[in-house]
Amino acid sequence: MNCIEIIGNGIYLPKREVLNSEFNEKFKLDSDWIYKRTGIEKRYYVEKETIENIAVKASLEAIKNSKIDKENIDIIVVATTSTEKIMPGISFEIQKRLDIKKCMCLDVLAGCSGYINAFDIVRKYIALGEAKTGLVIGVEEISKYLDYEDINTAILLGDGAGATIIQKTEEKKIYSQYIESIAQDGDILTCHNNEKLYMDGKKIYKYGITKTVENIEKLLEKTNEKLDNIKYIVPHQSNIRILENMAKRLNISFDKMYTNLKNVGNTFCASIPIALNEMYEKNLLKKGDKIILIGYGGGLNLGSILIEI
Amino acid sequence: MNCIEIIGNGIYLPKREVLNSEFNEKFKLDSDWIYKRTGIEKRYYVEKETIENIAVKASLEAIKNSKIDKENIDIIVVATTSTEKIMPGISFEIQKRLDIKKCMCLDVLAGCSGYINAFDIVRKYIALGEAKTGLVIGVEEISKYLDYEDINTAILLGDGAGATIIQKTEEKKIYSQYIESIAQDGDILTCHNNEKLYMDGKKIYKYGITKTVENIEKLLEKTNEKLDNIKYIVPHQSNIRILENMAKRLNISFDKMYTNLKNVGNTFCASIPIALNEMYEKNLLKKGDKIILIGYGGGLNLGSILIEI
Repeated sequence: MNCIEIIGNGIYLPKREVLNSEFNEKFKLDSDWIYKRTGIEKRYYVEKETIENIAVKASLEAIKNSKIDKENIDIIVVATTSTEKIMPGISFEIQKRLDIKKCMCLDVLAGCSGYINAFDIVRKYIALGEAKTGLVIGVEEISKYLDYEDINTAILLGDGAGATIIQKTEEKKIYSQYIESIAQDGDILTCHNNEKLYMDGKKIYKYGITKTVENIEKLLEKTNEKLDNIKYIVPHQSNIRILENMAKRLNISFDKMYTNLKNVGNTFCASIPIALNEMYEKNLLKKGDKIILIGYGGGLNLGSILIEI
Repeated sequence: MNCIEIIGNGIYLPKREVLNSEFNEKFKLDSDWIYKRTGIEKRYYVEKETIENIAVKASLEAIKNSKIDKENIDIIVVATTSTEKIMPGISFEIQKRLDIKKCMCLDVLAGCSGYINAFDIVRKYIALGEAKTGLVIGVEEISKYLDYEDINTAILLGDGAGATIIQKTEEKKIYSQYIESIAQDGDILTCHNNEKLYMDGKKIYKYGITKTVENIEKLLEKTNEKLDNIKYIVPHQSNIRILENMAKRLNISFDKMYTNLKNVGNTFCASIPIALNEMYEKNLLKKGDKIILIGYGGGLNLGSILIEI
């Protein structure tokens, strides 16, 4: 079974920066109310761009950063929760615009945690020798589905795209995943075409701080690994309060929980690859480091991946 | 690496049966015009049901036919090109309505050929020991996206759901797949939310009789297998003329090309599992038979799977 490594990352944030001040005025909030409750200072909204545009831009940056020839990409998997493009999907649009002659494309709908599923699917194709290089994208145009009268979601969410290039490596590297769905509670976070996004904030909060911790514990048990040996947990950037509470329940220092939602908000499927990209840019990761990616959200779906850098 | 086998199938066709006579009147056609050109006598449209309803019904039948306990299902993957349910997806709705306590869910958007991708993803989880039993569903509510003034698509397409249960087997069984995307030509067949389905019939016809044949040849070469040893080709049921031409170009008897679109029309992602179900019902397949499933359509995406029964 082949091992994998991350060889490049790229992101794209839309041009329109939306500061908390826009919401403070609308909802008559104190200037620090949003930041204190969410950890977010700004987010971005797509304006004259499309979801495919921003996915393509992030992909191009990831290809550039990984220094691969685009023709080496064997598989493109996109995760999203906010597309209207059912056929062809966004992954196909990426193949088309990058003019990649030969590859396989698919879009995955698996809630805000879809990037984890997409990453794991690409890893499976590489592990089984069906692909050598994969492009995984998390992309959202969630602003289109936002109910701007709903303070629960309007202040939290933003658009963006993150792309990761994964490649087969001859080196022996640990990889493990634990992905599970809890659809029985799926109605607490929904996004359907021609409807506004709905979230039951309280229930999502509880889910975010309990099921995620259990999921990470199951992953560690499955992998026979200890949290002490994990350099960073890279969580879905939902809300700083959820992440603080998650760290507390995992009994780890909050420094170990990588967060960047301050500058981008909660970008659903794009949040983990956007965070990963920043970690690579800041040189926070070195060869041999073990990290855990943890996604959770609508579906309900959640999943974690333990990966060796 | 674990081997897989198909252990059960199920389908569901909506209640509203639509005969050619409905179109003959509208388009002022001779009574046999549609059948002669497409091989289709009737198709079904969802009326008071939803896409999730019909997916759940097909899944329940597949579970019943396979005689498994639903709790043994580790992974549910749905392929569709006609959903508005982005989060939670249809697979999550199936987990919820079947009340399966522990499994993994995801929906795949990969064009009319998406069932092939969904099947292959489930097979990868089983091959790598991450799942033992998987439920793969192809489901469409394409009637919602039909332009009833467009004779190219209106007479061809229908709604339906097909479900397949795949399980790990200790027996040594052949499995091979060849999946590829040709997104550069993706604009000849599109289905987006809030738009009507569009198909360039002539270009799709050419694609359907050339790229599919090449794809099957690549699969056979990869698998080191001969067409003579294949009992049936189970194609996406697009149009009888495409299937006849495909058989001719493959130099095989048309009997070897399993067709059932006469009674159901072209049901996009649901067409292969609906055909497979019928083949099992008719006892056409016995242990050790090798068959090829071939999907093709929007994306453009195409893929074939060689599987041993």
